[in-house]
Amino acid sequence: MADAEQTRRRILEAATEEFAAHGIAGARVDRIVAASGASKPMLYAYFGSKEQLFDAVFHSHVIANGNRAPFAAADLPAYAVLLYDDYLADPALLRLATWKRMERVPEGYLYSGLEANDAAHLRDIAKQQREGTIRADIAPEDVWSLLISIASTWAQSSITGVATASDAEAEHARRRLALAAMVRSGLGADVRA
Amino acid sequence: MADAEQTRRRILEAATEEFAAHGIAGARVDRIVAASGASKPMLYAYFGSKEQLFDAVFHSHVIANGNRAPFAAADLPAYAVLLYDDYLADPALLRLATWKRMERVPEGYLYSGLEANDAAHLRDIAKQQREGTIRADIAPEDVWSLLISIASTWAQSSITGVATASDAEAEHARRRLALAAMVRSGLGADVRA
Repeated sequence: MADAEQTRRRILEAATEEFAAHGIAGARVDRIVAASGASKPMLYAYFGSKEQLFDAVFHSHVIANGNRAPFAAADLPAYAVLLYDDYLADPALLRLATWKRMERVPEGYLYSGLEANDAAHLRDIAKQQREGTIRADIAPEDVWSLLISIASTWAQSSITGVATASDAEAEHARRRLALAAMVRSGLGADVRA
Repeated sequence: MADAEQTRRRILEAATEEFAAHGIAGARVDRIVAASGASKPMLYAYFGSKEQLFDAVFHSHVIANGNRAPFAAADLPAYAVLLYDDYLADPALLRLATWKRMERVPEGYLYSGLEANDAAHLRDIAKQQREGTIRADIAPEDVWSLLISIASTWAQSSITGVATASDAEAEHARRRLALAAMVRSGLGADVRA
């Protein structure tokens, strides 16, 4: 069982690299097999198909992001900065989500199976709107969409600039401040009196 | 000459569909040839290669966006709304930019050949910061990146929700108001006194 778990993890790691780099259609199971040291029958026994392997990789990265950066509606500027840092810490996450959007779900909901998490985020936002820390003239779902979009300004799918681990620390610091300031004034309730 | 121009335009239109749907690696020249009614030798004579054809398509969509929605630093909320509508009007634009980011330019500048346009945007932003209509505590390049990211909250590459032409008009109206309000409070200078 320990071996099986290790093999499963090695396949997921190799698949993360492969899908993040090449997308779903572009990914090659042969390369994942070679990089993981597992066999092809083993990979199919564990994950079913290339498509299902992608689902497992995507799901695990979304869940890991939620664990490392739990949503905190009471402090949206801090949460946005947490996401900025988390996209740097897991450079695959936004690429996996974006490939899924581009290749498989051109519109509609991207996180099937995680509907309850998103519903909880919207409830948290609505609660903070009632308590007066988030502006109440923007619908909770729009607050959420705007927040995620702003937090991913410099993420791996950015059509302006992508932040990388090799950027100067001063540059990261400048972006974090800009992000927090923008979220505070743009979504906060108190600053627009 | 009129015929040549017409053929060129038919190829660009068919290539837009193909690249927007399948990306650069996934696009098939045969399908573009079939859809455009041109011949394969003609396509290569006009555009050189599949890669160069993508460049021509991408460039033409970015330029067309700039013409339909010229940057107006003096009214960022209105510009953000203009972009929201323009992404609806040309559903290929954000997909082309995102494929390029994902497949070809994972970091760094995405619009080679258009550096002068972007430099002009930053100068316009700096000018409005001096004149006091855009907050001055965020660097012009960060204002630009944040603005584009917010404006594309519901664009075709969104990892939350994608706006489509078939959405109810009330939904578009609600998002436009949210966008303008967020940009006004988040990037304006006057509201944070």
